[in-house]
Order: sequence, then structure tokens, then C-alpha cells
Amino acid sequence: MSLERVPFELSKEYLDLVLRAVEQRDAGFIRDTMEGVNPADISALLDEVETDEARYVLDVLNNEVGAEVIEELEEDTRKEFLEELEPQEIAQYIVEMESDDAVDIINDLPVKTREEVIAAIDDPESAAHIQELMRYDEDCAGGLMAKEMIVANINWTVIQTIDEIRRQVENVEKIYSVYVVDDKNKLQGKVSVKKIILSRDNTRILDIYDSDIIHVETYMDEEEVADIMRKYDLDAVPVVNLQGKLVGRITIDDIVDVITEQAEEERALMSGISGDVEEDDSIWAISKARLPWLLIGLVGGTLGAWAIGFFEGSLERNAALAFFIPLVMATGGNVGIQSSTLVVQSLANRSAFEDSISKRIGRMFLVAIFTGVVLAIISFLIVFLWKDDQTLGTVVAVSLVCVVMLASFMGTATPLALDKLGINPALASGPFITTTNDILGIIVYLAIANLLLP
Amino acid sequence: MSLERVPFELSKEYLDLVLRAVEQRDAGFIRDTMEGVNPADISALLDEVETDEARYVLDVLNNEVGAEVIEELEEDTRKEFLEELEPQEIAQYIVEMESDDAVDIINDLPVKTREEVIAAIDDPESAAHIQELMRYDEDCAGGLMAKEMIVANINWTVIQTIDEIRRQVENVEKIYSVYVVDDKNKLQGKVSVKKIILSRDNTRILDIYDSDIIHVETYMDEEEVADIMRKYDLDAVPVVNLQGKLVGRITIDDIVDVITEQAEEERALMSGISGDVEEDDSIWAISKARLPWLLIGLVGGTLGAWAIGFFEGSLERNAALAFFIPLVMATGGNVGIQSSTLVVQSLANRSAFEDSISKRIGRMFLVAIFTGVVLAIISFLIVFLWKDDQTLGTVVAVSLVCVVMLASFMGTATPLALDKLGINPALASGPFITTTNDILGIIVYLAIANLLLP
Repeated sequence: MSLERVPFELSKEYLDLVLRAVEQRDAGFIRDTMEGVNPADISALLDEVETDEARYVLDVLNNEVGAEVIEELEEDTRKEFLEELEPQEIAQYIVEMESDDAVDIINDLPVKTREEVIAAIDDPESAAHIQELMRYDEDCAGGLMAKEMIVANINWTVIQTIDEIRRQVENVEKIYSVYVVDDKNKLQGKVSVKKIILSRDNTRILDIYDSDIIHVETYMDEEEVADIMRKYDLDAVPVVNLQGKLVGRITIDDIVDVITEQAEEERALMSGISGDVEEDDSIWAISKARLPWLLIGLVGGTLGAWAIGFFEGSLERNAALAFFIPLVMATGGNVGIQSSTLVVQSLANRSAFEDSISKRIGRMFLVAIFTGVVLAIISFLIVFLWKDDQTLGTVVAVSLVCVVMLASFMGTATPLALDKLGINPALASGPFITTTNDILGIIVYLAIANLLLP
Repeated sequence: MSLERVPFELSKEYLDLVLRAVEQRDAGFIRDTMEGVNPADISALLDEVETDEARYVLDVLNNEVGAEVIEELEEDTRKEFLEELEPQEIAQYIVEMESDDAVDIINDLPVKTREEVIAAIDDPESAAHIQELMRYDEDCAGGLMAKEMIVANINWTVIQTIDEIRRQVENVEKIYSVYVVDDKNKLQGKVSVKKIILSRDNTRILDIYDSDIIHVETYMDEEEVADIMRKYDLDAVPVVNLQGKLVGRITIDDIVDVITEQAEEERALMSGISGDVEEDDSIWAISKARLPWLLIGLVGGTLGAWAIGFFEGSLERNAALAFFIPLVMATGGNVGIQSSTLVVQSLANRSAFEDSISKRIGRMFLVAIFTGVVLAIISFLIVFLWKDDQTLGTVVAVSLVCVVMLASFMGTATPLALDKLGINPALASGPFITTTNDILGIIVYLAIANLLLP
């Protein structure tokens, strides 16, 4: 028995103590200080150490805790760590995980290792579950679901159901609801654990179950599943196959991850960062993620330069014309991003009663006219008061109205089109739309100048 | 008994049928077709109808379903709807809600109505709970928590705890865990419902409870609570006050809302939309949300024009200089957004082992030099091959290196500074950073041209 538990705090000091203990092979210190600590905290600690140090710590802990720690490691750390392990060792951790987490981890392994790991799993039911789940695409309901759940036959009694819970107690970490099926394993409904506690032992499930149950199908897209769980405030949702048979369940923690990943993906698209990169990655990784859109921006800038070159004559006649290129360009860029963001947002909160595309374009058009005219009046006043040049003021003002309308149209139509093509519409809120609008803005501005200026 | 339930589908056709039923005051149709339908679907339907039509539908349904429907309505629709109701009517719905949802809705009412509604609540316990929760700021743990939960004294037996569950069954929709407290109501731990079912009636809670429990404090910021629940995969977390006494619990559905709102807020900041506006809002509301940043952009553009005007002489000597203003500007904008997004992302995923600010700035610096040089070489080649002008090529190339470094610095330092000031750092990923970088880019480019060109 431990006399007094060392209070745990995730700190640089504790990290140093752990590293020293690893060096001195002091398993006792690690075991004592990490007892009862949440695995997610141990993972955060191991994210900071070398692979062989992490391995020593995990060897000291039991496999059950170790499995949870591995699940919570950062993807890069985990990959490096698992590369060091033998398939048999990985299999020992895998059997301790819920099937959906196990599959996520196996899918990240090299193909050859995957098979070796599955072959090394000594629990045939686990292995069968994992092989079943591996058939599904990672981004659909089948790829999110776990096999662990409590299922009761509609003809059972409460006491039979409690026996089933007892039998499954090791496997199912959180019960949420007990799912009710018929003899053919078709989903009929659910019954809450609360109701089971409060019913007499010989009550039949048939008499207490709730037949109004929301389910999803294996092939459903993960974002659709997230929308459904969010809309109906579900903690867990049963998954059925095409025959209506219950094949698994998805829990809210997986959906929280889906929502978080969605937000991160969108953020990356909006800012022109390609790939999954973080601020503390290597300089080469960050540069590689940033260069593609910067190069596209460079090409866009060159096209812009070419467009300006086309109007060189006008610029030589009136150098002040060049002054307002940035103003027109920036306004086009801002309007484009705003428009596309509003569309992306409404695509993210889809309802059954969507406005038609023509209604959307119509409303966009009215907003564009209104904001365009406001901006035009103000810019006319700025140019007129500063340069005392009514014609130049008119050129800037008219250009702004046109550019705002064009940018609004591009910003509204592009995400709608991308969405129809099955591409993430957030792509249209990033450098893509800015670059396009920059070039269009320059052309519109200089063309109008060419028409109106002497 | 209903013979055959009309299958429910959220469609325009069904909406029309409901509207006709409302017109003909056909309560039977509404009651029959909506029986067993999830309240969230009824809300989606009522979001599309007029207030008096929604009111008729809700009058037909019972208050329990009505309360859930009202909770799930869109904010605007709900506000309009509640304005039509008498305080007594609102109170009848409020008593059916969990205390946290009740408080959210009461807080949206005019101050005078709030008091009348609370006075009209006929259940003194409900009213006391609501008044207690109203004391907390909406954005902290106290403002998210509900009073509904199952609490067991550590000295109770399992059967006493089941009695308590039975007593509370009406109030607590989802149990998750039973929280264990001592005689002074101090939080001691938790025990799962699963464990309660599987233990003998006379087992003491003391012998089966789990003392490793993660809790939050009432004053904790909602985003911190979201981080904790996400990190530890919690479905519910108990909230304690400064004395360590258990005062409420926060459930995962509220956290899903917090995460979604965070993403929406960030999206709005990144795209320069102020306020909470949606694509299907009125033209005036959308314009009002969009104009502020467009006007700031206009001011930025005017400053840019002024900066260019400052170098009018250089531009008159070499008109081709103007060609590359957009290229330099756009690159600065893109780099700034990328840098700030990486920082915002790492601020969103804070860990206990943060890199120091100097290390961050250092890494940013190296990435900027590397990407800047790549862009500089390519742009030099473009300018040289197109314009056959080595000096202009050098000006563009040197400017790009400087602008990339400057924009990286601004993009990294601004969100860090905003974060220190307690402002949402995502503000630095939007038009704010673009506008600043536009102006800086123009000045750097033209100043370098002035130095290097004859």
C-alpha cells in the first residue's frame, strides 16, 4: 500500500523527475506517481519524451492503462512509438481498446504490420470485430462505430438484461442505452439503464422499451452523423446496416473529435495551409504546407501584373490611377471572403427548408448593391477631397460597386459549386477566392478607368 | 389508440399540411402526426412558420414536448415567439426544462418579463435553482451547469441510492454518473449506474465509489471546461464552488454547443463579419455585419494609396514598378494569415508544455527566411524573363523576402499579443492582419525600389 500519494501535476518539474526515473530504471517512482492519474495526462507527458523513454514508462504501467495512454498520444508520437514495438506487443494493447479505437490505430500501421497484429490478437471475438470494422471507410458511420454495446432481445426480462450487462461489463465502458433488437437482430428501440434499475426483475423489455429511436446507417458520412447527433442531443447512436440489423454504435466522444477536425480542416483551408501541420512542427514541414498557396498567390500576382501591364498607357497618362489599385483589390478580397463564409456557414447548418440557389444569389445581389453603393460614396468623397479629381473619384466609385458585386457573386457561387462537386466549400473562403478576386478587381478597375478617363 | 401512425418526414409537403391544419384548427391532425416525433424536428418545422401558427401547434402539444421544441428553436424565432406569450405561459414551459436550459431562455427575455416569469413558476425548487444559476456569468462553468443530477451520500447503501434515483427520475433526463458527496456536500467521487446495478442492495457507496474524479469550478471559462471535457472524453463533469461543494453538473451536449459556437465565432472573425449573422438574415442585418470591416479595409486602402502617392516620383520614372504592387501585397496578406492561423491553432490546443515565445518567434523567422527566399527566386525569374530588367527583378525579390518576414512576424506576434490581452486571437487571422500587411507591404516594396532603382 502506498502511504501517501505524491500529488500529480503536469509540469516541467515532474517531467524532469520522470526522465530521471527512466534513466535510473526506477519503476517504483513511475508506478507510484502515475497511479490513478488520468491516461490523457500521461499521454501529454509522453508526447514530450523520446520513444525509448516512453516505452519504458508504458512497460511499467499495466496494459489497460497503457492502451488508453497510446490512444491519447499525438498522432506523430504514436506512430514513432508503435514503429518500435513488435506486432505481439501492439496486439496486447489493442485487445484492451474499444474496437473503434483499435481499428483507428491499426489503420495507421504499415499494411504488413496490420496483418501481423491482427494475427497476434489472442481473443477471437476482438479480432473478428476489428476485421469487420476495417472493412468500412474511415469517414463514414461504419468507420466511426464500435462493436461494444449492450444489446437486449425484445423478449428478454429485465433480469436477463442485467445478466447481459454483467457479462459485458468488462468490454463496454459506457452504457448510455441498452439497444433492443428482435430475433433477427433488427433494431427495435432502446431502454435506458435508469428504467432497467427502476423496473422489477421479471418485467419484459417489450413492456418498457422505447420504440422512438434515432439510428444511422453504416454508409452515412461522418459529418452527417455529427449533424444528427448534435441536432438531437444524442450521447450515442446505434448503427444499422442495409438490412436494418444493428451492427454497432457511435458515441459522442468520437463526434466531438469529428467536429474539432472539421473546424481545423476549415481553418487550414481558409488560411491557405495545405495538409495537417502544427505550429511546433519542423521548419521544413511548415514550409511545405505553406508554399503551395503562396506559389499560387504568386502566379495570381503575376497575372495581376500582366493585367496592369495591359493598361500601361493609362497608368503613364495618370500615375494617380495606380494609387487606388490596392484599395479596389483589398475591398474585392474582403467582400469575397465575407460572402463565401456566410455560404459555408449556412452549408454547415443545413436544414430541411433550404432557400433555393436563385433566392440566395438574389439576396447576395441586393446586399452587394447596398454595401457597394455605401463604399462607393465614401471612396468618391475620399478621392475627390484628396485629389480634387471628380473623374478619378467616379472611376474608383464605379469600380467599387462593380467589384463588390463581382466578388459577392464569386464568393457566393464558388462554395455552392464546390459543395455540389463534393469538395469542402471552405476552400472558397481562402486564398483561392482572394487571388481570383484580386485579378478580377484589377481588370475591372483599370478597364473602367480606360473607359472614363480621357 | 391511433390505428396507423402517419410516417413523419420533414418536408415542404408536410409543412403545407401542417399550415392547412393550423388554418382549419385541426388539432387532431397535428397531434396524430407529431406524436413520437423528435422535438428538434418539430422546432425545425416551426422555424419556418409565423409566430401565431407556431403558437397554435405548441398549444396542441403537451407542455413537456412544447418545452423541448422551444429549446431547439432558432434564437430569433424563439425570441419572437416568447414575446407573444404571457409570463404565466412561459413559466409553464420553463418548469418542464432542465435548469440550465431554463436559465438560458430566461436570460434572453426582457428584464421585467424575467421577474414575472420566475414569480409565476409554481415549483419552489425549480424557481430556487433558476435564481441560483442566474447569478453566474453565461460564459463560465456556473453559467453552463444544470442543477439536475443524482447525488448520493458516501455513507448510503446501493438501495438508498436507487431510491434517490427513483425520487429524481422525473427531473434528471440522463444520469451518466451518480456523484458521491460527504455530509457537508463536498464532492468525494462518483459511481457509475452500471456499478450500482451490479452491486448488492446493501453494499455501501463508500466501498464501490471511484475517488478519481475530474471536476471543474464555477468560475472556470467555458472554453477551458470544453478543453477538459474533450481531453478526458467526459460525458458530464461535476461543478464545485470555492468551498469544494458540489453545486451542479455540465453535460456534453452543452459542450458540443460551446465548441460549435467557438468555431462559428472564429469563422466570423477570420472573414471580417461582425456580430452573429446568417446567410438567410435580412439584407440590412447582413450589410450591417459586413460594412464595419469593409470600411476599415477602405481606410487601409486609402493609407495604401497615400503611401504609393509618397513614391509618385519613382512610379513616374518606372511605370512597371506599379505592376508588382498587387503581387507583393497579396503575398504579404497570405503569409500573415497563414502565420496567425498556425498560432491561433496552437493556442486552441494548449498543452502543459508550451514552447516559449522566443522559440516560437525564432521558428517563425526561419520558416519566413526559407519560404521568402523560395518566393524571391521564383519572382526574380518571372520579372527577369518577362521584363528583362535585372534591377526590377532584384527589387521585387528583396521586397518579397522582407515582406514575408515582416508579415510572418506580424502574423505570429499579433495573435500572441491579443491572447495575452484576453482578446480572441482569431481576430488576427482576418482582415485586420491583411489590411496591416497590405500597407506595410506597399511601403517596404516602394522604399526598396526607391533605394535600388536609379
